Amino acid sequence: MAAGAVPEEVLLNSDLIQELKEVARDAALLHGVLMRTKESPNSSEVVSYAPFTLFPTPLPRPLFQQAVQLQILFNRLVDKISQDLSFLEEALASTIKVDDFTAQLFNIHRTVQQEGHSQSTVLGLIRSDYMLDLGPDGKTTLKQIEFNTIAASFGGLSSRTPDVHRHILKVAGLLEHQKRVMDNNPAAEFASALAKAWELYGSGRAVVMFLVEDVQRNIFDHRCVENELWKRNVPVIRKTFDDVFKTGLLDQEKKLFVLVPCAVLCGSFLCCVFLQNWEVRLMMERSQAVKCPNIQTHLAGVKKVQQVLAQPGVLEKFFPNEPEAVAQIRATFAGLYALDVGEQGDRTVAMALANPEKFVLKPQREGGGNNIYGEDICRVLQGLKGNSERAAYILMDKIHPQPVENYLLCCNSAVKLTTCVSELGIFGTYIRQGTKMVWNQCAGHLLRTKSAEHDDGGIAAGVAVLDNPCLV
Amino acid sequence: MAAGAVPEEVLLNSDLIQELKEVARDAALLHGVLMRTKESPNSSEVVSYAPFTLFPTPLPRPLFQQAVQLQILFNRLVDKISQDLSFLEEALASTIKVDDFTAQLFNIHRTVQQEGHSQSTVLGLIRSDYMLDLGPDGKTTLKQIEFNTIAASFGGLSSRTPDVHRHILKVAGLLEHQKRVMDNNPAAEFASALAKAWELYGSGRAVVMFLVEDVQRNIFDHRCVENELWKRNVPVIRKTFDDVFKTGLLDQEKKLFVLVPCAVLCGSFLCCVFLQNWEVRLMMERSQAVKCPNIQTHLAGVKKVQQVLAQPGVLEKFFPNEPEAVAQIRATFAGLYALDVGEQGDRTVAMALANPEKFVLKPQREGGGNNIYGEDICRVLQGLKGNSERAAYILMDKIHPQPVENYLLCCNSAVKLTTCVSELGIFGTYIRQGTKMVWNQCAGHLLRTKSAEHDDGGIAAGVAVLDNPCLV
Repeated sequence: MAAGAVPEEVLLNSDLIQELKEVARDAALLHGVLMRTKESPNSSEVVSYAPFTLFPTPLPRPLFQQAVQLQILFNRLVDKISQDLSFLEEALASTIKVDDFTAQLFNIHRTVQQEGHSQSTVLGLIRSDYMLDLGPDGKTTLKQIEFNTIAASFGGLSSRTPDVHRHILKVAGLLEHQKRVMDNNPAAEFASALAKAWELYGSGRAVVMFLVEDVQRNIFDHRCVENELWKRNVPVIRKTFDDVFKTGLLDQEKKLFVLVPCAVLCGSFLCCVFLQNWEVRLMMERSQAVKCPNIQTHLAGVKKVQQVLAQPGVLEKFFPNEPEAVAQIRATFAGLYALDVGEQGDRTVAMALANPEKFVLKPQREGGGNNIYGEDICRVLQGLKGNSERAAYILMDKIHPQPVENYLLCCNSAVKLTTCVSELGIFGTYIRQGTKMVWNQCAGHLLRTKSAEHDDGGIAAGVAVLDNPCLV
Repeated sequence: MAAGAVPEEVLLNSDLIQELKEVARDAALLHGVLMRTKESPNSSEVVSYAPFTLFPTPLPRPLFQQAVQLQILFNRLVDKISQDLSFLEEALASTIKVDDFTAQLFNIHRTVQQEGHSQSTVLGLIRSDYMLDLGPDGKTTLKQIEFNTIAASFGGLSSRTPDVHRHILKVAGLLEHQKRVMDNNPAAEFASALAKAWELYGSGRAVVMFLVEDVQRNIFDHRCVENELWKRNVPVIRKTFDDVFKTGLLDQEKKLFVLVPCAVLCGSFLCCVFLQNWEVRLMMERSQAVKCPNIQTHLAGVKKVQQVLAQPGVLEKFFPNEPEAVAQIRATFAGLYALDVGEQGDRTVAMALANPEKFVLKPQREGGGNNIYGEDICRVLQGLKGNSERAAYILMDKIHPQPVENYLLCCNSAVKLTTCVSELGIFGTYIRQGTKMVWNQCAGHLLRTKSAEHDDGGIAAGVAVLDNPCLV
């Protein structure tokens, strides 16, 4: 049996698994791995545990370290892209014609660009996602699935899961495995970066604002980061877009103010979590607030950019004198193909139709769960044939992860032995003041695991569950 | 305004209180201050927070310290009582005639006494409860309400509440108050004592068994202690009386065995949490297991003993050469009066009927919420007049605590400003091997607060809620 794998006498002992499930559930709850219920997503009167794996998943240490070490390079890359406005304009030209969301972002970008930015400090909080690809030669390599520039989700809860897995392993008598589960604290890492940016904003009256959706089922994930900020004596408020729409205003110096419960207006520095209201987004982009992400960093994260980056010579443009950096980043790229109108796009379509099982078709749309696989690729591409709308997608090589047997614990679902695949996210934080990078850190990791039956979908979509690497 | 009190601009700012409630609830949940729901007391699929106060309650530091310092004396006193079999027999003679529960305990005690004890190590985990009595002279003194020898409840959750209150105070801007909330970790203290007793038991194959009720709404409280034991590499199992009834057995050396999920029989060392099945209790008392409490220590905790201790000369018998210890303990006694048949009991009845508002009538019954107040005292005593059944009660002076304004947060209840009173419990742990006390510690505290409207009832009864002292 491979190191780090759970021995069969544990995995298949149904009495023990039953006991471990109870222990695991209560440990997750006690450690704050919480989620509000589907039925009452805006109430904390009764809550449940966030879904998670019973056991951590074996992951080769060298590949994990490769991903961790890459993160400060990816941070720099994303920040460079966000500052290269002609690159963004060119890369997204075809996308904004057909994808309304990206077009709206781009309009805001253009507006604030013309008006002039009132804040030169940028806070980046990004996540680069990978899967382990088992090649036909039997070699496993690290392949990037995507990178996200609005990526704080589950950084809080994943700070709590290592202790849960260690406890389960201890009760299961797997003491050697237990030592292979590393500490992970994205909540503290995010808070350190946010606190640094708050400090740079330079007003003791400023607060960090978490801009949240109306439906807040994942509030405990945010609360983990909030608590870490309060520990650092940085005040935090939570506001919905609607709150900001109703009570937000800019003063003459473009300082952003919102109404807080102490019944005074406070200068606020903000952290965007998600986006809905374009008017509010524009007000915030115009403001002196330090944005996370700002509009350019948001644009740098759209999938089309990822595909353009994979083209020959593009990474070299961002790292002109660092061939080693280019090689390290490129080594994690899977094949990525444009679907723009024209000959190149036609070739991509022909390739996808010939072997749809080899690819993933990815729309620009935000969030997980929208990717297209197998015969659906043919259906979608044939529907779009010759149509410029196919530029709203990119095509990517499908990754072949090695499946692992595990149990997935989800509220009110039966727990059964499941063949699973995992995705490793590495968090990064950086802060740039004007042209100077003053903070660049790897900020922990997020392992998500799902049934191999599901092609797609994240934790929020209820498909993937929280996990931890068990380094081997 | 008194130091430690919450300023009115906070206490009466309804917008801020609304915000703090949300913050408080989520903080309690994230810190593991959990309870299963009334609707599903045996499931952890959805859970709620254990009820708690929004703010900690001011408590004079000298009185708090007095209670803490007394604990190692109380530990010794309880242990001495448990070994003084003729004292127990005499003190409980009238009670066992009328109280069936105490009589059953006494029968088991007699049986194992005749057979001879097979374990000379005793683990005590006790709690001494106090209220602050505001005398007619305006002086506040510490008065003991009762002591408990089955008292582990809420030691786990109260280890988690200091951080919750500190967080609330920080968000409320009450930084000075925050520093007055002390650390408290009964879960770790219990676990240290349990681990020591496990070590003294002397078998690496032994496990700590938590004997639990069928309805386990308060499981998270226990889990806090279990987790602390696992951290100390001491294995823990949870068993109901029914589990032990069905699978428990004693070997020829009177080692106790129960079936555990690994499908092997394990030698078990045990911690009783609550009692129901007399057959199981007898089997356990006969066994080599270290009991917590053993039957004599259990008997030492019945309320009648408390009344006998308050009689002149009784404490002196237990501490013959320590007048200082006697004085310190006696200083916390409220007036306690016997209701045995006879002249003394008749005088007690007359005194109670004349001024019922000055007294509390306490039945022997285990657990809180059974005390009798005011006109009900007359009703009960008149019903029992001349009847030997009145020996099942003791009478105690009523304490007059100083009320404090606070908000009580209970699942699915409206939160409103409430006039509250508090009860301070001090936990103690001790281990005796034969005649030698090898462990004697104060093990933290438990402050419980309830609406002043309620005369009686604990947290489990849904009346009192978890609180913390804010030392002034």
